Amino acid sequence: MIWQDIRRIRDEAPLVHNITNYVVMNTTANALLALGASPIMAHAVEEVEEMVRLARALVLNIGTLSGPWIEAMFRAGREAGRRGIPIVLDPVGSGATRLRTETCRRLLTELSPTIVRGNASEIASLAGARTVTKGADSTLATDDAIEMARFLSERWHCVVCVSGATDLIVGDGVVLRVRNGHPLMTRVTGLGCTATALTGAFAAVNRSPLRAAAHAMALMGIAGEIAAEQSSGPGSLQVRFLDVLYGIEEPDIRRRLKMEEAPARP
Amino acid sequence: MIWQDIRRIRDEAPLVHNITNYVVMNTTANALLALGASPIMAHAVEEVEEMVRLARALVLNIGTLSGPWIEAMFRAGREAGRRGIPIVLDPVGSGATRLRTETCRRLLTELSPTIVRGNASEIASLAGARTVTKGADSTLATDDAIEMARFLSERWHCVVCVSGATDLIVGDGVVLRVRNGHPLMTRVTGLGCTATALTGAFAAVNRSPLRAAAHAMALMGIAGEIAAEQSSGPGSLQVRFLDVLYGIEEPDIRRRLKMEEAPARP
Amino acid sequence: MIWQDIRRIRDEAPLVHNITNYVVMNTTANALLALGASPIMAHAVEEVEEMVRLARALVLNIGTLSGPWIEAMFRAGREAGRRGIPIVLDPVGSGATRLRTETCRRLLTELSPTIVRGNASEIASLAGARTVTKGADSTLATDDAIEMARFLSERWHCVVCVSGATDLIVGDGVVLRVRNGHPLMTRVTGLGCTATALTGAFAAVNRSPLRAAAHAMALMGIAGEIAAEQSSGPGSLQVRFLDVLYGIEEPDIRRRLKMEEAPARP
Repeated sequence: MIWQDIRRIRDEAPLVHNITNYVVMNTTANALLALGASPIMAHAVEEVEEMVRLARALVLNIGTLSGPWIEAMFRAGREAGRRGIPIVLDPVGSGATRLRTETCRRLLTELSPTIVRGNASEIASLAGARTVTKGADSTLATDDAIEMARFLSERWHCVVCVSGATDLIVGDGVVLRVRNGHPLMTRVTGLGCTATALTGAFAAVNRSPLRAAAHAMALMGIAGEIAAEQSSGPGSLQVRFLDVLYGIEEPDIRRRLKMEEAPARP
Repeated sequence: MIWQDIRRIRDEAPLVHNITNYVVMNTTANALLALGASPIMAHAVEEVEEMVRLARALVLNIGTLSGPWIEAMFRAGREAGRRGIPIVLDPVGSGATRLRTETCRRLLTELSPTIVRGNASEIASLAGARTVTKGADSTLATDDAIEMARFLSERWHCVVCVSGATDLIVGDGVVLRVRNGHPLMTRVTGLGCTATALTGAFAAVNRSPLRAAAHAMALMGIAGEIAAEQSSGPGSLQVRFLDVLYGIEEPDIRRRLKMEEAPARP
Repeated sequence: MIWQDIRRIRDEAPLVHNITNYVVMNTTANALLALGASPIMAHAVEEVEEMVRLARALVLNIGTLSGPWIEAMFRAGREAGRRGIPIVLDPVGSGATRLRTETCRRLLTELSPTIVRGNASEIASLAGARTVTKGADSTLATDDAIEMARFLSERWHCVVCVSGATDLIVGDGVVLRVRNGHPLMTRVTGLGCTATALTGAFAAVNRSPLRAAAHAMALMGIAGEIAAEQSSGPGSLQVRFLDVLYGIEEPDIRRRLKMEEAPARP
């Protein structure tokens, strides 16, 4: 099923509109291109509504937020909502500052994103928990995050993806666990944001947001594993990761996939 | 002649002032440095006029447009015009939104750029044709683009470069066709923008905008071919591309160049 | 002692808050991560004071300056000052435009940065000397820069680091000279900015700004040498540089270090 999604992305090259942070614009555009999607990065309030109409998914990432970008996110998001275009939200650094936490809550409330993907402490901050955010890293235990994710998922009617050593994808009364990935990936900036961008591409071709999010996380993890095995550090990992996304084949996925499904309330 | 330009760029390290988009700032600066030019990225309205006076070419790229950047482009462009500094315009995504199309038309009308480089659908949108823009990709047949390019070139007295599988460079009653390049290049973000930035470097050392644009496209294509042959995907292509720009030698160009010249109205 | 700092950075993963330019956000975040620090890139005036309180160093880089970013730098810098968080300033392009030179002087006067790192012509412009800045390159002889650095260091009570073929670190009545590095490093954009970012990480773990700055420059130079020896151009240098930062070990430093200390007034 992951493979089916990848083939559709490669065949259809869905346009994914990103309003994202300065740090990862280049790398997420490259990851989308390597996978076979068509990235567009556009943030001007004057044009985001027109642009999102051309797209099959909208990715909102608050990594380097400022006033006009927030306005652009709301405009694009409302237009996406009107047209049934899936919205993927990355609450980068939510919990670290009020601007981020409050903007995320407003985006959740007013735009009803289809999928939210963050690390455990970002997700916890959205759920109202008091935790310490340390930059893009998470300090909350992954297990505690499941409850948060369930709460968020039910409150905002969205799929919640908590990334970590084990990725948790929660929605539709189900928890999917993805155990792929490699520790070296934490030493490359923006791989979380890349996961969110690729989630946009999967959401463009798979009608189930739960599956789309899980498939994106599995592909990220598998591609990261393969790339890490061929790398001598985070510089080469970043390069190999794009090559692997581009060239990955069905057996790579079948052989490596570690995904489990369980009811959300066992 | 290409080689002569490359040697001059390496010897003189001309300063190329870029007002460009967030996605490609890093990669276009690196490409200019690898080639031997001196990139400067500066966009503040308070400083662009001062900055462009230090430069030997000005590159305007509308990839992630917003109000203040438009104003900076006009200020820098008018100062460049007063001083005879060549202006290269990249109409990224023109046709996709009114903001982009209208800003490009105003830039063309008020600044008289020396060279305009875009893909076929961007060029078509400037000529007033109705086409569908799909992100940075072009959906217009390359052949149809020649007429558009001629029209634009005559109307705005500029050289028009339409990039694609075959690059077309139109001006001075001549069409140059460059058939270098590699399909894998379309999987790396910003190589079109890189072509525009390198065109700035060539325009700084070659008084013929037609030749400058054609030489830049040929170098892009040749370096891309060599890099692609040594790469296993878009990640390694990007890395090798910079290494090749840095180390390219005259025989590489002579052996691979596929450039033809024809009258513009056969 | 350099090694001690590197181990502390790897063990403690200090959070380094960067308000930096668009061109290098990705690459400096990656360099900090590769070294073992935790980068955060945040510039919104609404959040920088909150953010800098979480950090152990603040890096201010004026490479792509504009109004709101200047305001953010002052807010973050004043809060850092109140809390004793070291501030590292990179006066990118100071001397090229009034906006840059004047903003740097105001930052120096009002924020009292702990360390200032620039090339010779940037440092000269801060000292009020009239020189020609050519983009990010320096045209001033390194020797002349020592006097400038001393003057600046005494006037603004900061450590001044002048990078070049020989790096000069001036403060506390002492001049440290670091002769590591490789010419190919000048062909990669943002390695100066990376030096400044890494200086932030060293300042987070070493109470002596003089040592912190010198250790950062030595590590930059040594990692650059190793990476250059394994590279075929600036593309691969950039990749290898991150791998080397990540994997560097004590003997690499001991064997290659070229650092000398002398009194500031011989």
